[in-house]
Amino acid sequence: MKLVDFLGFFAAILTTVAYIPQALKTIRTRHTRDLSLAMYSVLNVGLVAWLVYGIFLVQWPIIFANIVTLLFTLPILYFKIKYK
Amino acid sequence: MKLVDFLGFFAAILTTVAYIPQALKTIRTRHTRDLSLAMYSVLNVGLVAWLVYGIFLVQWPIIFANIVTLLFTLPILYFKIKYK
Repeated sequence: MKLVDFLGFFAAILTTVAYIPQALKTIRTRHTRDLSLAMYSVLNVGLVAWLVYGIFLVQWPIIFANIVTLLFTLPILYFKIKYK
Repeated sequence: MKLVDFLGFFAAILTTVAYIPQALKTIRTRHTRDLSLAMYSVLNVGLVAWLVYGIFLVQWPIIFANIVTLLFTLPILYFKIKYK
């Protein structure tokens, strides 16, 4: 694996796992007052666009990062809508 | 500009502007209880890593997206630490 691919996976892992503590906190507490509905709406659409971009370039760090990130950001959006 | 670059800029714009309403909400209300400190700590480090990755690949959508995103995610982290 090339150095640039390693760096991409490192970045992908960080910006993916970042949403895990927020998802767990939101699911556990059901407290979503301070979360922005607009942020999580636009973010999820943007992550899908990044995913398609990664598929076009066949850049696995981008593809991998965005699929897994969506697994955590979609539930946050769901809870924000359900418990606003 | 190639179609893939346009798609990259579209994705970059969405995942960048997504943090604007969260930053404005957090700055306006000073309410950060429901925000995860771990999320914004790891996210900011990850965005810097993506920035370096984009510089390596000379992929302007990645470079542009991460510089501007940091302009909004760093203030959210600052307010989370200050008003926790």
